Amino acid sequence: MGNAVKKLAILGSTGSIGQQTLDIVRNFRDSFQVIGLACSNSIDSFTAQLKEFSPAFAHIDAKAQLPGNVKMLSMEDMASHPDVDVVVIATTGRAGLAPALAAIKSGKTVAVANKEILVMAGALITSMAAESGARILPIDSEHSAIWQCLRGEEADISRLLLTASGGPFFGLSRRKLSKVTVKDALNHPTWKMGKKVTIDSATLFNKGLEAIEARWLFNIPYEKIEIIIHRQSVVHSMIEFTDGSIKAQLSTPDMHLPIQYALFHPQRVHNGKIEHVDFSRTQTFSFEPVNYADFPCLKLALAAANQSGSYPAVLCAADEIAVEMFLNNSIGFLDIARIIEKTLDMHQPVANPGIEDILAADAWARKTALKVARKEF
Amino acid sequence: MGNAVKKLAILGSTGSIGQQTLDIVRNFRDSFQVIGLACSNSIDSFTAQLKEFSPAFAHIDAKAQLPGNVKMLSMEDMASHPDVDVVVIATTGRAGLAPALAAIKSGKTVAVANKEILVMAGALITSMAAESGARILPIDSEHSAIWQCLRGEEADISRLLLTASGGPFFGLSRRKLSKVTVKDALNHPTWKMGKKVTIDSATLFNKGLEAIEARWLFNIPYEKIEIIIHRQSVVHSMIEFTDGSIKAQLSTPDMHLPIQYALFHPQRVHNGKIEHVDFSRTQTFSFEPVNYADFPCLKLALAAANQSGSYPAVLCAADEIAVEMFLNNSIGFLDIARIIEKTLDMHQPVANPGIEDILAADAWARKTALKVARKEF
Repeated sequence: MGNAVKKLAILGSTGSIGQQTLDIVRNFRDSFQVIGLACSNSIDSFTAQLKEFSPAFAHIDAKAQLPGNVKMLSMEDMASHPDVDVVVIATTGRAGLAPALAAIKSGKTVAVANKEILVMAGALITSMAAESGARILPIDSEHSAIWQCLRGEEADISRLLLTASGGPFFGLSRRKLSKVTVKDALNHPTWKMGKKVTIDSATLFNKGLEAIEARWLFNIPYEKIEIIIHRQSVVHSMIEFTDGSIKAQLSTPDMHLPIQYALFHPQRVHNGKIEHVDFSRTQTFSFEPVNYADFPCLKLALAAANQSGSYPAVLCAADEIAVEMFLNNSIGFLDIARIIEKTLDMHQPVANPGIEDILAADAWARKTALKVARKEF
Repeated sequence: MGNAVKKLAILGSTGSIGQQTLDIVRNFRDSFQVIGLACSNSIDSFTAQLKEFSPAFAHIDAKAQLPGNVKMLSMEDMASHPDVDVVVIATTGRAGLAPALAAIKSGKTVAVANKEILVMAGALITSMAAESGARILPIDSEHSAIWQCLRGEEADISRLLLTASGGPFFGLSRRKLSKVTVKDALNHPTWKMGKKVTIDSATLFNKGLEAIEARWLFNIPYEKIEIIIHRQSVVHSMIEFTDGSIKAQLSTPDMHLPIQYALFHPQRVHNGKIEHVDFSRTQTFSFEPVNYADFPCLKLALAAANQSGSYPAVLCAADEIAVEMFLNNSIGFLDIARIIEKTLDMHQPVANPGIEDILAADAWARKTALKVARKEF
């Protein structure tokens, strides 16, 4: 590590995390080289990125005319290419799973922002990484906080206190929730994020995914994970050790920090563009228990986590469909939970699923969720 | 380390920290053996301790008849005795300095609760420890927090955020402060501590001492130390790293935890008697800047810190006299700052003082502070 240039492949480079990853590359040109970029369909933004970073490899799902000096590769081939050191997986939903598996199989360092990967296939991925020597580094602010709090600690963990902002609808009645619009839901009080994640944050579904990720990243059993509402999004999570001492990680809500932390780890570097927490004025941080009745999506996610097997894959797929439909104004906000619940209920689970089982559960769940949404069940 | 029994000498065993150290020994009988106990003059309490822990060595300043099977030793001889592994310095004021020096010279692990030691002679003590290989471990909750936050981090520190409860008089007008009683001052809102420390906490003088201790323990320059008011005393301090990420250490205000942390370090052990922070109810933590005009003792302490040389020794001595007089009802609360200020003003400083210079400055300051208090100047 040290001062060697790290060679990056960034999957999902035109999304929120992808763009912020490229901001870090811009700030530290001497530390990184962009080898590959991949995106789904933001052609203009992607073309500009190719021009600016001149990667050797590119991938885009949409039909597009790319510059001639860029070699087109599948995300899997890019993620496992010998020239790549670190694969940043900043895709959303299921899209990152196959390239993540390819990267891990070939022993890469994989920086993961795409929550669904570990949720869908945590057991597979962690055992594969143990075999290949691949490292899985979190980019989520919460998991970065946990990772930082665990630095230098080999101690018994007594609790993971996973903080949740509560999203834009915290405290709203069900009657009001039934009427919220896409615009309301995308208006997150503390974080600027992609659309899918923002909706998952409004339902607190994302905290369920994060609990599952934490279980796989840090081997923390679910019964030790406590979700608490922290409206200010400055404390990104806390670890309590067996002696009752708690370590918390704080920073302004800015994803550049966890991205940079993962890319430079174990080094910490100064970045003038990241604002520090301002203690020259009064700061008040509150922590309150979650009222699970208000957040059915969270309850469903935690139930699927505990049921394990193929349930978490179904959970992700049903949510992906439901959120997409909500964003398209096809369903109401409260329908998201209804669709996930019904889909999970109908699932015939597979214990210890292999990749085929996971993909099959995913495909089944997508179809089923659509049918549930259309009230065909 | 590991599971070997640690042999302790506890100086100041009948004080608040001394008693709590013995609580830890009681809880973990297999991990510790009490080799020596020392106190100033609490004869009954000390006699009971000797009976319970049967140390080989004892020291008491007062005239007292001790059990025949205990060998009387000076604190210096006890602190440097070959049978002792760890010396807990839980004395107050100047009393711990000579035994601390003896322990450090002989390469012991020294767990320090007595703030004045590093304040008076930080340069001497740290260079002596570097030579002998002695380790200096903090017992203060703030320094334990800093120590924990720095675990596993070799990174550049950008700020130490040293938290202060603000004490019982936070926000009081000068007119009201001029009339507060000893009883008022001893009624600390969050911590149960010895009398001297409680008064130093009411004036915020203790935060000045802690800034100086932090400078010596962790080599953090004063310009990176920021004192912030945190009324709830749950966040015991925070470290901000160069990337803007902050680590905070939280726990219920209970000195058993930092004592235990120092004694077991690097192990963390469960102690059923230490309450954990309760997140099943709403917790609100506030952080506000210090209004230095309200806390002249703190301003004086930080000024003496920056002037360095023999000033910090004078600072400690003047405060020790002034607090003693306040506790005896000889002076008012606001006189404490007046006495410290006048004594510091009159001091002829010595740069890079040796131990003789420090003791001379201390003796001069005690005499001078008394005279200032009696308005002989």
